[in-house]
Amino acid sequence: MDRNPTGKPVSLEEVFNPRGVAVVGVSAPAAGGGGFSFGGLVVLSLIKAGFPAVYPINPKYPEILGIRCYPNLLAVPGPVDHVVVNIPAESCLALLDECAAKGVRSVHFFTAGFGESGEEDRAALERAMLDKARDGGFRIIGPNCIGLFVPGRRVANSIDIPLDPGPVAFVTQSGGHAQILPKSSGPRGIRFSKVVSYGNALDVNECELLEYFAGDDETEIIAAYVEGVRDGEGFARALAEAARRKPVIVYKGGKTEAGLRAALGHTASMTSSVAVFEALCRQTNAIQVDHLDEMIDVLTALRFAHPLPAGAGAAMIGAGGGPAVLGSDELERAGLSVPRLLREVQEELKRHLPIAGSIFTNPVDTLNLIDSRAIDVALRTVGSSPDIHMLVYHLGFHPVGSWGMGRFSARTFLDPVTAVIRAARDAVGKPVLIALRPPEDLEGMKEFLAAQEAFVAAGLPVFHSLRGLAGAMSRIAEWKRRKDHTTSISS
Amino acid sequence: MDRNPTGKPVSLEEVFNPRGVAVVGVSAPAAGGGGFSFGGLVVLSLIKAGFPAVYPINPKYPEILGIRCYPNLLAVPGPVDHVVVNIPAESCLALLDECAAKGVRSVHFFTAGFGESGEEDRAALERAMLDKARDGGFRIIGPNCIGLFVPGRRVANSIDIPLDPGPVAFVTQSGGHAQILPKSSGPRGIRFSKVVSYGNALDVNECELLEYFAGDDETEIIAAYVEGVRDGEGFARALAEAARRKPVIVYKGGKTEAGLRAALGHTASMTSSVAVFEALCRQTNAIQVDHLDEMIDVLTALRFAHPLPAGAGAAMIGAGGGPAVLGSDELERAGLSVPRLLREVQEELKRHLPIAGSIFTNPVDTLNLIDSRAIDVALRTVGSSPDIHMLVYHLGFHPVGSWGMGRFSARTFLDPVTAVIRAARDAVGKPVLIALRPPEDLEGMKEFLAAQEAFVAAGLPVFHSLRGLAGAMSRIAEWKRRKDHTTSISS
Repeated sequence: MDRNPTGKPVSLEEVFNPRGVAVVGVSAPAAGGGGFSFGGLVVLSLIKAGFPAVYPINPKYPEILGIRCYPNLLAVPGPVDHVVVNIPAESCLALLDECAAKGVRSVHFFTAGFGESGEEDRAALERAMLDKARDGGFRIIGPNCIGLFVPGRRVANSIDIPLDPGPVAFVTQSGGHAQILPKSSGPRGIRFSKVVSYGNALDVNECELLEYFAGDDETEIIAAYVEGVRDGEGFARALAEAARRKPVIVYKGGKTEAGLRAALGHTASMTSSVAVFEALCRQTNAIQVDHLDEMIDVLTALRFAHPLPAGAGAAMIGAGGGPAVLGSDELERAGLSVPRLLREVQEELKRHLPIAGSIFTNPVDTLNLIDSRAIDVALRTVGSSPDIHMLVYHLGFHPVGSWGMGRFSARTFLDPVTAVIRAARDAVGKPVLIALRPPEDLEGMKEFLAAQEAFVAAGLPVFHSLRGLAGAMSRIAEWKRRKDHTTSISS
Repeated sequence: MDRNPTGKPVSLEEVFNPRGVAVVGVSAPAAGGGGFSFGGLVVLSLIKAGFPAVYPINPKYPEILGIRCYPNLLAVPGPVDHVVVNIPAESCLALLDECAAKGVRSVHFFTAGFGESGEEDRAALERAMLDKARDGGFRIIGPNCIGLFVPGRRVANSIDIPLDPGPVAFVTQSGGHAQILPKSSGPRGIRFSKVVSYGNALDVNECELLEYFAGDDETEIIAAYVEGVRDGEGFARALAEAARRKPVIVYKGGKTEAGLRAALGHTASMTSSVAVFEALCRQTNAIQVDHLDEMIDVLTALRFAHPLPAGAGAAMIGAGGGPAVLGSDELERAGLSVPRLLREVQEELKRHLPIAGSIFTNPVDTLNLIDSRAIDVALRTVGSSPDIHMLVYHLGFHPVGSWGMGRFSARTFLDPVTAVIRAARDAVGKPVLIALRPPEDLEGMKEFLAAQEAFVAAGLPVFHSLRGLAGAMSRIAEWKRRKDHTTSISS
């Protein structure tokens, strides 16, 4: 553990709780609002999030974005615990002396062009920075990343992501992904405790972060995007401990030759064998994904598939024969089972639903499965089968708006449908999963967003494709099976 | 070939060129516009498409949707070549007598509840209908489908799909897919010669349709969604001949046990072994897909990847390290190669592009790859490498709007970028493929649609995910390799 001049160790808990944040390398935005530098964007993000002590640093300006600008760190009157840096690599060492003098706790370098450039002098510069941080008793985040997003402390680095906190921690080597995940998963109800983009992992790295989040009371689910791991044994230990305590989703970037080359150029990551990595995930029961969209699907399932399914048996209900065939193929291909419904269940469905143009075997397809009473009957009847562990309801798998002609966005449709789905879910004690196909046009987007918002507000998991839904639920079923197995052995 | 009372065979060419269309089973839409029956929707679609001779049939109404309504087929003054039917199955036989008396050429049954219901009396009814059609000398489309869309003849069955004709024929056993494909692929520039939804394939079936489209001058590409094939040998012959003459994309629905069960309930399809089907596609060099979205991606590639790539070597350029890693993994996982760029190509790139935060090995990632001059340099330099056969440009793989802050939708950005991409493509003689990530919100949707529209208007192929792009281009590269191989052997 590094120590700051007061002699106390700088923990990640302290890093995530800064009293004051300075942003070094911030320019005034061009007239018209465009052309923000990253520094300007961070200042704006902190102000918008309501962080109380933001200090832009630039000797050229008296103020920026309406708040006072300081010529250097030492000129700031209050404490500066965290510094965001966006100046050229060459100027970084001098700045670190200033950081030491100010007694900061952590420095985040957005600045790139270090080890990942492949140039030896740049790698040497990185090592000199680390020495200065150790001497000065502060921590380094990055370089080559976008740093911290801690919604509960109003520490933000982006202006267009939800600012309310939630139970998901995201540890990511990519700064882009640090922005995409909260933005893309936000409309599906995913909220974050902390998002840490750690780039080249010069000081703070994936091992320390995993350890921290395993014990963090604000975090219930850990998601990690990792390109490379320097300390394989340490990572294995940290992953095992974290996955023992909480669901951990791991997306390893750079699994192919070209992907590895990109990772090397991106964050100077040298990765060990993919096979070793995948075996480690299996051993520790970490949930592996291979795409950010898959990570969002698994997060959606973990957060809102209530209760988590007790097995891999799925039933699909909704309107449309084509989607019924496609969805069945997707669910089984992903490793779930779509068992034929018992004859008495089929007969019970036929008593309540129209027969012409319908399928009752599982999938269940009838045209009136956009009617709340029909949905209610179908979910409760099918959900009562013991070999069905989850119910998939696809609405608007047709592009929304095509058949619905506006009805899907109406409260008169959405309110009763969300109500019957929640009630049926609670009655049968099995999760109901919603598949909603994204739209192609602006009108469709309005309808889609209204429908998604209603389902998410009702606490239901919404997926944007049956393939995504199937992949996530298959992973969840397998993860839960292994977890329950381990628990039953150790208890 | 069936014959109508005049003694001439009723060919598909005649079916696709009706002089008059009657719609039987059409009700007045409810006040407020909602609650259209399929019959009403077809009447409205025909009127909107400008078809000149639409005859709604219903003895209860003097007019419907502002046009005259007739009590029965025989009361229609002009010729009725095609009849769309949406009345209960029980009434269908009597109607066919009327069709024979009127001398129609083809009857399309939207009506479902026949063989696919699994009830023997319904299957017998189907056979009686076929006998009546043979006796009456007319053809049957369906039952249990949405019939014909022939944009060049103004024959439409949907109100929200592009009505201008194009070179793609779509043969589909699912009525839902008949609507989804044109609607979903429309914004990406895909237009259709004919779309035929043929449902239970009582008379007109996939074999005859494949034969027709193989010889249809208006059709350059054939797409087919098939759930089941009754005449395996006939299908093999028709597919081989069609695929010899034109690119054929085949999506076989119902490849899993549950999917097969759904297909049986959907269109009474009993399918042969999946392995046999897949082997047939390989032998005939038909392009196989397993999802409607994959079909759209392959259509996009065939239509707009100009020239088609001479091999499987791909280079990826764009801004963002995370997307660079993800995209490289996706491309190689799909079977394409992403070769390391030659040292001299890398050096040339470094002369023109900023070094800090960049990757030059392939993928090529620099932050200014949203600038038209940088894009121009990157595409031409990388495109000159002999082992690169296609160029992938990802823009807004970050959710559009996040970094762009509105700039991606501006003409000042889109016009120069589309111009340099087209010019670079023509200069290097290799296709440039655009990956554009769909948005999550309404503002993002506006920006996304503006960008997509500009690229599509410039004749460029737009994909909505790097995974979709990779899957399509891998299939295209393999298809072209086999095609060129066959051509060189036979020439």
